[in-house]
Amino acid sequence: MTLPAQITATTRDTGADAVAAATRRLIDAVVRAGSAMDALAGDLVAALDRLSAEIDAGAPDSSTRMADIWTSAGHRRHDPCCGTENPIAPPLVLHQLADGSVIGRLVLGLPYQGPPGLVHGGISALLLDHTLGLANSRAGTPGVTADLRLRYLRPVPLFSELTITARRLSAEGRKLFAEGAISVDGEVCVQAEGLWITTPRTRYRPDFEDIFDEAQEKRQ
Amino acid sequence: MTLPAQITATTRDTGADAVAAATRRLIDAVVRAGSAMDALAGDLVAALDRLSAEIDAGAPDSSTRMADIWTSAGHRRHDPCCGTENPIAPPLVLHQLADGSVIGRLVLGLPYQGPPGLVHGGISALLLDHTLGLANSRAGTPGVTADLRLRYLRPVPLFSELTITARRLSAEGRKLFAEGAISVDGEVCVQAEGLWITTPRTRYRPDFEDIFDEAQEKRQ
Repeated sequence: MTLPAQITATTRDTGADAVAAATRRLIDAVVRAGSAMDALAGDLVAALDRLSAEIDAGAPDSSTRMADIWTSAGHRRHDPCCGTENPIAPPLVLHQLADGSVIGRLVLGLPYQGPPGLVHGGISALLLDHTLGLANSRAGTPGVTADLRLRYLRPVPLFSELTITARRLSAEGRKLFAEGAISVDGEVCVQAEGLWITTPRTRYRPDFEDIFDEAQEKRQ
Repeated sequence: MTLPAQITATTRDTGADAVAAATRRLIDAVVRAGSAMDALAGDLVAALDRLSAEIDAGAPDSSTRMADIWTSAGHRRHDPCCGTENPIAPPLVLHQLADGSVIGRLVLGLPYQGPPGLVHGGISALLLDHTLGLANSRAGTPGVTADLRLRYLRPVPLFSELTITARRLSAEGRKLFAEGAISVDGEVCVQAEGLWITTPRTRYRPDFEDIFDEAQEKRQ
């Protein structure tokens, strides 16, 4: 099946996306090497800390960066599930089908391992919480997770193509219901359903209202 | 409260743990810098890819590494929640109290952000799935997650000390029940309860039985 245009941020070959992708390759090598790196460790730490210091020197503080993320298109680029600028994110790329549901495919390696050869149950939860949340958002009203139930029916293998799906079930006032699943070869491995609540984003953390206002003013 | 000795892997200042810690500092800098890195990106990617290639050159392939992890004490060092050798892991350090329950404290930064200034709901799920699973394991019988229910009662803030707790509730044959929570300043933010099933680890992925056997033979 050819997938329609993606709804998560487009991955760029340059800038922050490229550095995040290189950091993901590093994470994979680090987890795979383990104690095989022991002799190199001192030099690696020194080299990595030099690069971090170089990046730090030009980076804004966390409050400024947070305001930047949330007052620009950057809010789709930062998160730990689909964030093209976040090395922790696999990253999952999601698409929206004609019926409004959301779908994505990805293969996970050793950094995401729980039991032997399997994806960590908490990583499956991360993929599903995010995808169900995005399905809600695409249905017109974003919300924050209030209740999430996950049923682990079959093991989720590493190094295999996973299909993640989600759709809005219904909306009743501020309550948004969604469901989804992780499948492999057409068989459901993890099933998820949950409740989201629409919340104005400045209500998440009232102390951020000032940060947002300030950032908006700077832009004008 | 002084916490008793930790039950997660002790963090070393050298070797894979030190490289993973340096990679975590890099991840934090990368997420904070965003487009402020644009001018440096080409050089950063080249430098990171050189380091990854250097690590790769001495690293075993994924199957060998997986066998190493699961046939040594390394199985407590690799996971994406508490793994001292895994740069994706915050890492969470857990302790066991006299009543058998498990507790840990940590502060999360921008790489773990969901809504503005808050921990991603899926990251809360990862912390809880792992901690409840470890409470089960410490109660004498490890298992794999079969059912997990998360109730998000209050926002979980970034840059604040989170307390993660979990305990085994009961065991009925192969069924293990556990519950836990993420709290801030004594108030529960996310509550979790779930069902785990005891499963021999070679049953997770039958194709791994050969890998384990081979690794054990090599060791003898």
